[in-house]
Amino acid sequence: MAKAGFSCSWHMITAKKRSFYAIASAGNPPGLEMRDGKMVNGIHVKETPSPYIGNTNPSGLVIDSNVVEPQTFLLGRFVEDRFVYRQTFSIRSYEIGPDKTATMETLMNLLQETALNHVTSSGLAGDGFGATREMSLRKLIWVVTRIHVQVQRYNCWGDVVEIDTWVDATGKNGMRRDWIIRDYKTQEIITRATSTWVIMNRETRKLSKIPGEVREELQPFYINRLAIPAEHNDVEKIDKLTDESAGRIQSGLAPRWSDMDANQHVNNVKYIGWILESVPMHVLEHYNLTSMTLEYRRECRQSSLLESLTSTSEDSNSNSSNRKADMEYTHLLRMQADKAEIVRARTDWKSKLKHK
Amino acid sequence: MAKAGFSCSWHMITAKKRSFYAIASAGNPPGLEMRDGKMVNGIHVKETPSPYIGNTNPSGLVIDSNVVEPQTFLLGRFVEDRFVYRQTFSIRSYEIGPDKTATMETLMNLLQETALNHVTSSGLAGDGFGATREMSLRKLIWVVTRIHVQVQRYNCWGDVVEIDTWVDATGKNGMRRDWIIRDYKTQEIITRATSTWVIMNRETRKLSKIPGEVREELQPFYINRLAIPAEHNDVEKIDKLTDESAGRIQSGLAPRWSDMDANQHVNNVKYIGWILESVPMHVLEHYNLTSMTLEYRRECRQSSLLESLTSTSEDSNSNSSNRKADMEYTHLLRMQADKAEIVRARTDWKSKLKHK
Repeated sequence: MAKAGFSCSWHMITAKKRSFYAIASAGNPPGLEMRDGKMVNGIHVKETPSPYIGNTNPSGLVIDSNVVEPQTFLLGRFVEDRFVYRQTFSIRSYEIGPDKTATMETLMNLLQETALNHVTSSGLAGDGFGATREMSLRKLIWVVTRIHVQVQRYNCWGDVVEIDTWVDATGKNGMRRDWIIRDYKTQEIITRATSTWVIMNRETRKLSKIPGEVREELQPFYINRLAIPAEHNDVEKIDKLTDESAGRIQSGLAPRWSDMDANQHVNNVKYIGWILESVPMHVLEHYNLTSMTLEYRRECRQSSLLESLTSTSEDSNSNSSNRKADMEYTHLLRMQADKAEIVRARTDWKSKLKHK
Repeated sequence: MAKAGFSCSWHMITAKKRSFYAIASAGNPPGLEMRDGKMVNGIHVKETPSPYIGNTNPSGLVIDSNVVEPQTFLLGRFVEDRFVYRQTFSIRSYEIGPDKTATMETLMNLLQETALNHVTSSGLAGDGFGATREMSLRKLIWVVTRIHVQVQRYNCWGDVVEIDTWVDATGKNGMRRDWIIRDYKTQEIITRATSTWVIMNRETRKLSKIPGEVREELQPFYINRLAIPAEHNDVEKIDKLTDESAGRIQSGLAPRWSDMDANQHVNNVKYIGWILESVPMHVLEHYNLTSMTLEYRRECRQSSLLESLTSTSEDSNSNSSNRKADMEYTHLLRMQADKAEIVRARTDWKSKLKHK
């Protein structure tokens, strides 16, 4: 994470300080007060009034009013003493792929949406896409450096999923954001994800330390909890692919106008589509993508023509010992002109016959 | 519509017979009974129980239970004696474009979603993507031949929109599906759309008459109501562009794996992105797309390489007399290899300064 270049689309994030509190701890941490008013955990919050009155059923869905605004259900809400933000989604017809289940791109879109709504609902949102007020004052934005997603099961059209997200500090100047996706009906955990973020000046495009004022905004939201247990996480460096080591190269990939986000950059989620363009068709058709790790290294604007590289060695045992894949690939997305790296990736695949 | 070729992704649709009843007519048409039980309007319906108990507020959103399943809000429901299907959506962060408002692609996705949920909720759904049971028995699918969308205003991230949809017969063997999108908060109509559908055999890929059994399924849902008044509709033929008449040609457009739908065809909505690829950048940046008409002529599979053509004459007065555009373009999306037509399109644009 130290020197990486970035993409600035998935800016982001805040949550509440509960470092060193156990995952299952009940009640509020000492000194932290939880009220539906204005001061919560020592910070001033501005929130849309919510009809949720507690966690009296597993999903926390209890209505205390006869008339409910659809916004309430279409957006999310805080649970677990406001350390966790939760939102439900139904998988839409246009979010499923050729095999009729949600695509990895869809899951990543939903993770992004939940993260951004988390910030907005926290009352900390500045004028940017996920930046806090103190960040906006300083022209700072969040940039993601690494995301790792593990999928146990992909949902179908019409299924409802429930996404939890929360944040914590990582290193001296980083933030970690985790997510868990549950099948709403069974409450089974079907996806786990973790990501690392740093701060960049949006004008100089240089990395920045987290200013004290920003740290103060964020700390009340931090909670020390891992979506992916350390022993199952993918923390290994992703090897750089070259023309020699990549058996498959797909050139001439052109971002479309519709791939641009509100910052006039390629949205990070779009990279997944291009990475998959160099994966063999029989794998796309007969295997499920069960794990994906992305290392973001450089921003990409619309004019850039891209190349997608995939290793041909279907390395089935080496690095994936803790993820038990049938197949593992290494990928690189780079600029076609100067070969500058944009994203490195690692994917694990399992046969659809075994993984459904 | 007579001989057109098609795309088969946006299959579709059913609703209830109320032909020749006026738009604002109150109460049930004679002989049609509306009960929350099993037989409605002479057809057997299978429906998810709904907590909605009527139309006592403008949106019909009244809750009669303390515990509400999120599905209820994430999916839609019937209103107006089950002749109209209504669904609310919040615009998500990844559904907005560079100008931070929902894109035309997003609107079309939401129209598709509402249409498909309409069929599913009607209890008529067969095994296909929008096909009825009697259609599925006969291997028949819906194919769209023409869609026309008029946008008054594009919404921002977090805004809630409410979409109404209904169907009617058109011609001897066609079906018309209309939509209206409202801003949920103000109830202002912000988008109107109409589309024409015919039936195709999914194996022979030949057009079919509507079999009597299918007609019987559909008729109870038909309602004679127009989203776009006849005098404001775009019914004119779209001229075929050629290398000579199209000043701008963008070649080498390649559908990605992620552009495929559950039928292994390019999803109809994806065509919009490619059509816009040949529109001048200054138009994409400084004008709003206020009207779009698509004439679908041929299916497209993943292997096809495409070309996008746009007329250079910014024809601002001729055909758009009833739509008052600042600019009008004609487009063609065709196969690169044999120049076979996939979609013809016409778009109207208004300056963002005037249209916001």
